[in-house]
Order: sequence, then structure tokens, then C-alpha cells
Amino acid sequence: MRITIAQLNFHIGNFRSNLEKMKNAVDAARKEDSDLVIFSEMSVSGYPPLDLLERKEFIDQCQSAIRELLPVSHEIGIIAGTPTLNPLPEGKNLFNAACLLYNGEIAAVVHKTLLPTYDIFDEYRHFEPNKSFHVVPFKGEKIALTICEDLWDDQPLEQEFGKSRLYTISPMEELARDNPGFVINIAASPFAYNRIEAKKKVFIRKARKYHLPVLNVNQIGAQTELIFEGGSMIVDARGNIRHQLKYFDEDIYHFNLKDLTGTPGKEESKPGKDYVPMVYDALILGLHDFFGKMNFRKAVLGLSGGIDSAVSLAIAVKALGNKNVHAILMPSAFSSETSVTDAVELSETLKVSYDIIPINKMYDTFTKALDPYFKKKPFDVTEENIQARIRAVLLMAFANKFGYILLNTSNKSEAAVGYGTLYGDMAGGISVLGDVYKSDVYKLARYINREKIIIPENILNKPPSAELSPGQKDSDTLPDYSMLDQILYHYIELLTPVEKIIQKGYDKNTVLKTIRWVNQTEYKRYQAPPILRISSKAFGAGRRMPLVAKYDEPFKK
Amino acid sequence: MRITIAQLNFHIGNFRSNLEKMKNAVDAARKEDSDLVIFSEMSVSGYPPLDLLERKEFIDQCQSAIRELLPVSHEIGIIAGTPTLNPLPEGKNLFNAACLLYNGEIAAVVHKTLLPTYDIFDEYRHFEPNKSFHVVPFKGEKIALTICEDLWDDQPLEQEFGKSRLYTISPMEELARDNPGFVINIAASPFAYNRIEAKKKVFIRKARKYHLPVLNVNQIGAQTELIFEGGSMIVDARGNIRHQLKYFDEDIYHFNLKDLTGTPGKEESKPGKDYVPMVYDALILGLHDFFGKMNFRKAVLGLSGGIDSAVSLAIAVKALGNKNVHAILMPSAFSSETSVTDAVELSETLKVSYDIIPINKMYDTFTKALDPYFKKKPFDVTEENIQARIRAVLLMAFANKFGYILLNTSNKSEAAVGYGTLYGDMAGGISVLGDVYKSDVYKLARYINREKIIIPENILNKPPSAELSPGQKDSDTLPDYSMLDQILYHYIELLTPVEKIIQKGYDKNTVLKTIRWVNQTEYKRYQAPPILRISSKAFGAGRRMPLVAKYDEPFKK
Repeated sequence: MRITIAQLNFHIGNFRSNLEKMKNAVDAARKEDSDLVIFSEMSVSGYPPLDLLERKEFIDQCQSAIRELLPVSHEIGIIAGTPTLNPLPEGKNLFNAACLLYNGEIAAVVHKTLLPTYDIFDEYRHFEPNKSFHVVPFKGEKIALTICEDLWDDQPLEQEFGKSRLYTISPMEELARDNPGFVINIAASPFAYNRIEAKKKVFIRKARKYHLPVLNVNQIGAQTELIFEGGSMIVDARGNIRHQLKYFDEDIYHFNLKDLTGTPGKEESKPGKDYVPMVYDALILGLHDFFGKMNFRKAVLGLSGGIDSAVSLAIAVKALGNKNVHAILMPSAFSSETSVTDAVELSETLKVSYDIIPINKMYDTFTKALDPYFKKKPFDVTEENIQARIRAVLLMAFANKFGYILLNTSNKSEAAVGYGTLYGDMAGGISVLGDVYKSDVYKLARYINREKIIIPENILNKPPSAELSPGQKDSDTLPDYSMLDQILYHYIELLTPVEKIIQKGYDKNTVLKTIRWVNQTEYKRYQAPPILRISSKAFGAGRRMPLVAKYDEPFKK
Repeated sequence: MRITIAQLNFHIGNFRSNLEKMKNAVDAARKEDSDLVIFSEMSVSGYPPLDLLERKEFIDQCQSAIRELLPVSHEIGIIAGTPTLNPLPEGKNLFNAACLLYNGEIAAVVHKTLLPTYDIFDEYRHFEPNKSFHVVPFKGEKIALTICEDLWDDQPLEQEFGKSRLYTISPMEELARDNPGFVINIAASPFAYNRIEAKKKVFIRKARKYHLPVLNVNQIGAQTELIFEGGSMIVDARGNIRHQLKYFDEDIYHFNLKDLTGTPGKEESKPGKDYVPMVYDALILGLHDFFGKMNFRKAVLGLSGGIDSAVSLAIAVKALGNKNVHAILMPSAFSSETSVTDAVELSETLKVSYDIIPINKMYDTFTKALDPYFKKKPFDVTEENIQARIRAVLLMAFANKFGYILLNTSNKSEAAVGYGTLYGDMAGGISVLGDVYKSDVYKLARYINREKIIIPENILNKPPSAELSPGQKDSDTLPDYSMLDQILYHYIELLTPVEKIIQKGYDKNTVLKTIRWVNQTEYKRYQAPPILRISSKAFGAGRRMPLVAKYDEPFKK
């Protein structure tokens, strides 16, 4: 049997575009004499459609799309992902399904069993879990057709309290009883730089456990904050990765099933990439697709002379092209001289248009208007925030007048501790670096500079500062980023209990202060823009916190 | 058996306060010779704790709280709600549990079976569902102890495509086999003005179906956007509501179980209230608790002379007291004269301090700074937004300098169609009216004026306007609110398919335009403040939409 894996970039609700891509892939497969083309999870609708699944119009379109694919399946099998209706009056309205189309008919439908409900996933919200297990017969083969998590049943459900927990059922064990010839796993599994190796190991482990080839088809492309890296895998029955499709790009691959069961040839597994280049590629794809899928074209951002906006600009130029990015430099009385010269140098290196608009006059008008009410109260965070908010007003004015989308350039460290101004530097249509800790922003900058200097060395070397008050430095308020980021990573990504973080040797007061900052600034992050997600726990839809002043009580010792 | 129902206002993570309230209620019950005190769902932790359930520190505190209640249970039964650990390695880490404490021991633990995952609920995210059913023996009685949804098993799961769907299992039917003497239902069921009657009917129907008294204990109090109305119910075996606890206030009620099984006395069911007073009470509680639970005290808001900010101010004065609310009037060149006089009149009637800060100078500085870049481009939404954003900068400056929290005064109609300025009038720590359609804002205003004129008649009578350009009226852009709100209600609350909305007789183009607005402005609402939820479908955590330009495709005909 000859098989084609089609790793494509789908667009939620853009049924026309999704169908066209699928039909083109089937054409390509046909030319290669393939017997079967496999698409990723929910390919006809795009993933994740969230509450669009509650709209009849949306489900109708999914059904139409499947009907439209049927004639294309003449003498070639198509496995497509789609939501399907649950005909029973009990349980959720829908299934998350994989349909095998063949010779104009729906030859088989498989429903997803293990519906993830952790982090960004809400699949129990709309889908009824499958409860019966059968292999899918096709051209003399028996296929164990699984959907994403259904093959991950021995993976930790979620890292709760540091314990790995298992699912209560194993769909693959059920299917194995029917003696399938190989495993197909269609997926929509989002990128997290700290989960890439774990994903590979799932497929390798399953291939070895069941002595079966595993064909994994992941989607690529970004949807708002979620980035799907692709990297679909073909693993032979001995657990060797025989081929891996591209990361962060569409890719189609044709191969003969029998080649996977024979003696393995040379192993084609690519070496595990260092995470920084992957994060860089992920952010470029994320930004590119956010603009493309929202019908946006041009971006504007505030260039402060600091590292965050510099890295954001470099990524934006890669994602959107230098002609589509505009930088605005808005120095205040507290800006250092090199802030402007560094930002200008960067803009010119990247061939990006820029304007310089000092904010002093606007700042003076505000403070003068407020003087009668503030009287002689000393300069404080109020005046710092006024500067940040004036910049947001200017940036949004450019955005409104010229149709730009404002890029938010905050990093994850400052988002975590609330070191930012709501409606000021926290503004933006999308956050480029909001899931990247400050230490990693430096790593990205060095990676961007790997061949030639793009980001001026001065930007990399100066001490971080918001430049909102005289001589201000981040280190006046925050612990050293190298330590801060470690504490944050333990608390946010790993959910490490506070006591255990302290036991690791971090200064107790710094740990408690940091964690209190994180908890007390949930209300700020509630209103943050969507953040491109590159880790296993980003701020946003995957981290749901109540707003309550008291919930740091458990951490008060 | 004498029973006490304790309908209390809990605070998430404030274990000290929650325990103290529970202990006081047990003391009161003891004085009344009660045998059993019943608290609401997740009483020790507060509900909903969301992802705090993933933190070991939080679960440890829940366990400590239960341990601390044990000695209090000497000769009196206590039913308390709490998350408990799942001892098995498979499945989710926690159960949503009701514990019966008696004589210093945990006499029984019941786990929740039907875990809601619709709208704002995410219970499958953290909890493993119960699979075994037993009545709880206590002092010679057999109790069918159920948690919230477990008794709602014949209610629609969610209104998907207008169909009612059922759960696949009925915990109460299982329990009924053990011949219980009565039903307890502990709940944390949030307020929705359009679900009040449906809730009552559940308990009445269940009492009749099983010929058993039903004791429902709901929590009261607000948590961020969610408002819990209380209104706990005691229903006798014939389905008569014998007593209902207060709406929107803490309440404790003691009664004899045998009185419920004898001949019913006079029915004490309160008549169904008109929804406007309930919405008014709900918003006051919501705002009051948001401030109280966040440790905030004082509010500031922009008073435009329009109906939304007027109603918001009146509610804020009720919730926080007139001394804790400050109004700022910020007229521009486009403000009508009466905008200021009406706002002043309202502030004086409500005895609220106010300042008047014209924004013309700041507006001029911005437009002058932008002139070289905007050149001769005509006045458009850019300049309108600059005005709204200058106001936000001023309001936030007051908030920062004096420790006010900014109240957002947008209504649901404008939030729905995106008729508002991000980082401008969409700013705020909490939205008072973001779940109230414009038509209902008028009804609230008339209700506020029911005894004497508080909101000047002129504010009620003038045509709605954002006053951001010369002679601007909402009706220049939007359909009449009476029609708009109906279309929005069908689309958002009822999920009515677009074609069916048109079939109801609304103008097709208006329907399509309205729905396109709703879909195309998801990105704005993504960054909106928390919105006090008073309906079955508010913007925010209960409505999760992907950001994609193309997903109005199904609606293009």
C-alpha cells in the first residue's frame, strides 16, 4: 500500500481554502499512485474551532465539506478529520471524528476517545467520547485509526503536583486486540519547545510496544495564540523514525507501507534541534499566520531601544516582510540618548520605515491638566504609566489611520510579575514575546545575530530599563532575570509547590515575593492581548485563574 | 431530624474567612438544636477556583480546612463541599466532593458525577467523575446526597442547535434504588436572569418524580464576573416550595425534616420576580464583591452624560457607597452642552464627588504631533478613538494616583458589535453593564428612578451618542437598539441559526450585518475587562471564540 501524508496549514472556518488544499493534496497523491491520503485532526474545519462548534451553520459547513470530498475519493482513500453529529439524544452533540472516504462513500468513521481538557484544550466541552473500538479495514489492511491523544494514553494527563497520571482507558490496547497492520494517528498538537522530545518518544514507544508502524499526521500553522509545528512522523515497527516531515511548513510525503515493515534502512530521524531556533521559527510562523488568517497585512510597533522591541521587530520583518512593518520611536525626557540611536540603527539595518515622535509635549499637557487634582503629590507610577499610555495612544492612532496592527512587545517575565502598563506597553493586537522569558529573549537576539549583527550589540549589552523615571533600571525593582526566570519557570510551567522551589536553593524572600507578584497581577493579564504560545504553559486561554486578592494566602509563611 | 441550611458568601482561597463563617453557622445551628448543617458546593475553598486546583498548596489548604472542621462536628452533622484527592493513579487528580463530618470523623464522602463543561464551567478540567452510587446513612435517615448538576440530569446539557440533550447517566435514578428519605443538593449555580424559573422547576420536578423532599443549598456572592444568587430552596415531597432563602444575601434557615413530609402547609414560594430588579440586585452584589474580594475600596468612572455611565454610577453608589465613588466629566469639542449639566446633576443627586477636565488641549497636542504623519487625511475613527483614549489615560491616572479602580461602563449591545474603543471606553477593572443590552440599560434606569428621579429624565430621553464627532448619533451607524438587541439575543444567548433569525421576520441585511459585526470584533472583546454576568451567555470565559477573519463565511449568502 502506498500512502501519502499531507501536513497542511488549515484556516478555521475557511472551508473553501481548506477543501482546495485537501483536493490538491489528493491530486498529488493520485499522481504518485497512492492508495491513501491522510490529513490531520479536524482538517476540514481547522483546529481549534472552540465555540463555533455550537453553531449549526458551522457544523453544516463541515458536513458539506465532507460531502464535497466524496467524489474526490474515487479509487483513493482519504482520511479527513471533522466534527460529526451524535445521533443519540444523550451526551454531547458532537464527536471529534476521523472519516475514511473511499470510492464516493464514507467507508468508516472513528471517534476520538480521550478528549483533552488541560491547558488550552476544552474538548469535553463539545464532544462525546467514543466507547467502542474497531480497526478500519482498507484494501486488505487493518488500520488502527487513532486521533491525537488516543495514542497518548500513557502520557501524563497533566503534571498535577508533580505526579504523572494516566487515562482510565487505553484506546490503542483495545484496537490491538483486532490485530491491526499499522497505526494512523491524526493530530492537531500545538507547539511547546519543552515538549518536542516527549512527543517523539510517544510514537517510538507505541511502535515498539505494539510492534506496528505508526504514521502520525500533525497540522502545521498558527491559530491566534496557538502554533502547530507539523513535524509529522513515520515510525517503523521497531520504533525507528524513518521520516519526519518539515517543522513549521506545509509538507507532503509519499511512501510504501511495506518499506516500514522490512529491514530498517538508515535512520532518517533528524537530530533534536536546540530550542532557540525552534522558538524563533515558531514565532515567525505564529505572527505570519495571525496576520494572514485575520486578513491583516501591516504591523506597527514602538521601538524603545531595548531588547524586547528589537527582537520583536526582527521577527516581524521575517514574518511579514520589511515593507509591512513600521517602527515608531517615542522618546521621553527619561530616554537615554542611545535608545534613539540604537533603535534607528536597528530600523536601518532591517530596512524598516520609522518615525520619531517625542512625547514630551503630550506628557506636559497631561501633567498640567492633572496638576490641580494631584496637587503636590510626588512623581510615582502614575506618571510612569502616563508615558506608556501616551505611546499607546500614538501607536493606536497610526494603527487606526493606516490600518496597521499594533504588535505587543512585552516578554513573559514582565507579564508574569506585572511589570508593565495596562493600556500602555501591554497594548497590542498580538503579543510576539509574551511567552518568552527575558533570558530567552537575549538568546533569541544572539540567534538573530548569529551570522551578522542585526540587533546592535549595545542593545544586547545595556542593562534592561523601562526608562520611565530618571535613571530607572529593571534591577531596581526586580531580581536578576536569570534567577527570576528560573523561579517563574518552576512556578508557572512546572507547577512546582512553593516550598519545593525554595528547597531548590532559591532565596526564600525572592521566591515568595515573585509568587505574590504573579498572583496579584492576574487582573492585568486578564486584559492582555493574545500571546503566541511556545511553551507548555503560556499566559492566556491555557492558564485560568480567578481574580481574588486572598489567594496568595497559602504562600504566606 | 432538624436541619440547618447555611447559604453563605465564600471567598476563593480565603480559607480563614470561609472556615470562620462555617463555624459560626454551626454554632447557630447547635443553638437551634439542629442535627445537620448543610453548606454549598466547594464551600471550604470557594467556587470556582479554576486552575488554583492544580496547585498543591491550594489542595493542602482544603484538606487542612476539613480537618479543622472535624472537632466542630461533635454531635452535629456537617455537610461541606471541597475538592478531594483521587487516590488512584488513573484519571484526574481530584474529585468535587461533599463530605459529611460527624463526631470528629469524616462519616461519608460523595463525589460529583455530572461535571459541567459548558459556558463558564470547566469541571472536567480538574475532576474525575464519580461512578458509584450510595445513599448516606445519618441518624437513621438515608440521604440522597447530590452535588449541583447531579440532580439536573434531565435538564438540557446545553442548547446546541436548539435541541435539548440529556446526560448519559442519572445519578439520582441510581440513588433512588437505595430508597433514600430525602434529597440534598449542594450547589454553586451562577445567576442568569433568564434561568431563574428553570432552576426552580428542576427541584420541583425531582421532588415529584421521586416523591422526596429536596433541600437545595446554593452559594451566594460574586467571584470576578460570576454572581451567585443564593435563593436556596426547600421543596417538599409533593413538589411545593416550602421555603426559599434570600436572593443576593447570606441567609441561614432551620427547619424540621418531618414538617416537609406531612401535609403541606401554606405554600411559601415567592412569586417569580420581574427580571429587572433581580438584574439590578445582581449587579450591586457583583460589584460589591469584586471590590471586597480584591481588597479594593474606591471606584472612579467617566461620566459622559449618557445613560450607560449614569446607570453604572447609580449601581456603584449602591454597591460601594457614595463616598467611595468618584466621577470625572471629560467633555470634548463634540460634547453637547447638556452632557455636562446632566452629569453634574446626577453626581449631585447621588452625592458623588466629581471633577470636570476638558480634553481639548490634550486632543490638540496629539493631533498636532500626528499632523506631519497624517498630513491632510480626513477626520475619521482615528480621531474619535484618540478622544476616547485620552479619557482612559486621565481616568487611569486618577486610578493610579489615588488607588481607584476604573469602572467600565460599556453595555452588551456595543460590546457585541464592537462599537467602542480598545484602551479607551473599553478600559476598566470590571465592566458593570457589559452583559446588559442597551434596551435593558434603559429599563434599569427607569427602575432606579422608580421612586424618585435619580437619573435626570434628559439622560433617558436624549438619543444615544458617543459624541466623538460633530452631531454623531448611534443610529447613524447602528440599527435601532430595540431591533439590534433582539437579533443579538437570538444569536448570542439562544445560538439561533442565522437563517432562523431571518425567518422570524428581522430584516435580512440587518441580521447579516449585525452578525458579521459580532464575529469580526472578537479580537476587541478578547482584551475586554471581566464583565459581571447576569445572563446565560455573557462575553468572557463562557464564550470562547477563535480569532479568524474568515469564520463569517457560513453566514455569507
